[in-house]
Amino acid sequence: MLIDTGKARNFCEALFAAYGFSIEESKIITDVLLRADLYGIESHGIHRLVRYDDEITSGQVDVKAKIETVHETAISACLDANKAMGQTTGVYAMNMAIKKAKASGCGMVTVRNSNHYGIASFYTELAAAQDLIGVCMTNTEAICVPTFGSEAMTGTNALALAMPAEPYTFSYDASTTVVPRGKLEVYRKNSQPLPDNWALDENGNPCNDAARVVENIIAKAGGGIAPLGGLGTLNGGHKGYGLSIIVDLFSAVFSGGLTSNHVNRKPGHTGICNYFMAVDYGIFGDKTSIKQGMSKFLQEIRDSKKAEGQTRIYTHGELEAELMSKRINGQIPVNEKTIEEMKAISKKLGVNFTIN
Amino acid sequence: MLIDTGKARNFCEALFAAYGFSIEESKIITDVLLRADLYGIESHGIHRLVRYDDEITSGQVDVKAKIETVHETAISACLDANKAMGQTTGVYAMNMAIKKAKASGCGMVTVRNSNHYGIASFYTELAAAQDLIGVCMTNTEAICVPTFGSEAMTGTNALALAMPAEPYTFSYDASTTVVPRGKLEVYRKNSQPLPDNWALDENGNPCNDAARVVENIIAKAGGGIAPLGGLGTLNGGHKGYGLSIIVDLFSAVFSGGLTSNHVNRKPGHTGICNYFMAVDYGIFGDKTSIKQGMSKFLQEIRDSKKAEGQTRIYTHGELEAELMSKRINGQIPVNEKTIEEMKAISKKLGVNFTIN
Repeated sequence: MLIDTGKARNFCEALFAAYGFSIEESKIITDVLLRADLYGIESHGIHRLVRYDDEITSGQVDVKAKIETVHETAISACLDANKAMGQTTGVYAMNMAIKKAKASGCGMVTVRNSNHYGIASFYTELAAAQDLIGVCMTNTEAICVPTFGSEAMTGTNALALAMPAEPYTFSYDASTTVVPRGKLEVYRKNSQPLPDNWALDENGNPCNDAARVVENIIAKAGGGIAPLGGLGTLNGGHKGYGLSIIVDLFSAVFSGGLTSNHVNRKPGHTGICNYFMAVDYGIFGDKTSIKQGMSKFLQEIRDSKKAEGQTRIYTHGELEAELMSKRINGQIPVNEKTIEEMKAISKKLGVNFTIN
Repeated sequence: MLIDTGKARNFCEALFAAYGFSIEESKIITDVLLRADLYGIESHGIHRLVRYDDEITSGQVDVKAKIETVHETAISACLDANKAMGQTTGVYAMNMAIKKAKASGCGMVTVRNSNHYGIASFYTELAAAQDLIGVCMTNTEAICVPTFGSEAMTGTNALALAMPAEPYTFSYDASTTVVPRGKLEVYRKNSQPLPDNWALDENGNPCNDAARVVENIIAKAGGGIAPLGGLGTLNGGHKGYGLSIIVDLFSAVFSGGLTSNHVNRKPGHTGICNYFMAVDYGIFGDKTSIKQGMSKFLQEIRDSKKAEGQTRIYTHGELEAELMSKRINGQIPVNEKTIEEMKAISKKLGVNFTIN
């Protein structure tokens, strides 16, 4: 089902204001949420409203929280979000990193006690829009099983990086697991067996049974998703496992917050941690030449020889930019279930629901 | 075959001095080379002497090169190695990053026109030994095929990070491909079929024929190795492909040097580019607490529930530290072919070959 982008925006802004967020905060949260739908990453878009509703009403998110600066230098800061909304925290922290990068060449901001912040590329692209590199990491509740383990210890732990380039900003945004949890849920819903190398059962054995894996995850009964590179070491699973530790290092260890294996273990407190970095790449030389160098390299990749049966090689962020240009003044697809959830939330909060 | 570590060290130092390197440079190159053997990463150790001999005698490495600072700020530098040896360049650049990190919290050094620098963890661990985080990246000759492509455009493009922790420094050092080229060569030698998801033929189709893939790589005839995550997008190959672009961004694009697809395309010039970063993690808060936080997290992972049939979960750098403690005052394994190569080089240069 297609809904009008502008009307979806108005609805979401009114909804977040009804929870008690300021107009400015409501606009930020809506921006991050809708960006996911504009980019075709539905798992992080309006689809997630019901989950945010739950986090706000259960007290995991504190609508009135004040973000606190715990430690600060010219190039860095450590923030305590005090359970603020992930999106408002993310924009606040990345703006701080951007300001430091403009003044000192580099800004690194680590954040504890935050919440789910939507798509990471939203924040890295804030930096890219200011002609800086943006880097962003977040831990999540543990779902990824270390190589040779049977118990999830790290999260989907996404890593994002944006670098200005023409005609598309290079925008990388990916979990350090083979797949995110949402993919398993699709296979479960369709009663399809999981592909090999995706998941483990509660004993740490390879498992193709989506229902079993998802139910174990929900019950915290062991097993979970394989790191990028898959099970064992044959295809480099230990590499993805290490990358997931690196994400926890920058977000949780540096901020003194909860590592993935402790996230979401107490009622009313997720404890999610993030990391934001902006770098003025002019610290390495002439910015025009460097940006041209990146654009040229990406173009050479896109122009390189295609595999048999393929017509196009994408660089990261290209597909999303194209999709957004079509959808921003048009419509976004939303599934029926999400529409029902939106209706229920709008009724509960007394916000008018007109999207078509 | 086992050779005495001390004697191997003396032999290598004498050898590099015979090429014309200073005593100090010869010690550095030997240190990096032997560290790989001490860590059990034979592919990057003494085994590679014959290749360095070839690079030095063919003029790819300029023994008398002076490293030049092209651009510099308090937190950054861009260096032109002018074809200097990769190991001496690496130590020079990481020491520069360390000095900047100690003075300003962070040091980022990008390098163009360098050469193969051995194991990346040698440099990141220089930073960790000074109680800093170390990060290191290098591009290589293109060997990795982008998702949906049939032509190698990025290198093995390893990414390394070291962070102080007890009882083992966390030391991540991994290519952004499924496997490095050396692994394919082992399968070829043993006439074994390659595992699925490792490699592509010249048309971009999945290929299990090790000989065909290796011969294509040598002839630059197309095809190559899959990015971390494998072929296509099912297991996240597009994630590894993106990581390999990020490594080229930091090493080649920021330094104004050659991206992987242009490395080693001219006789007498590899053009390999590197990136070195050191960060004083005290910019985020109390160093003792942060280091303890990292040690605790890694210990929790090592202590977590093992998969059926497994007795141990490793964190990155643990295995290498254990192996080195056994080998440093003892012996390292070297294969017969390498011994023959060492004999030939020693004869050519008139350096005494006594290793047992």
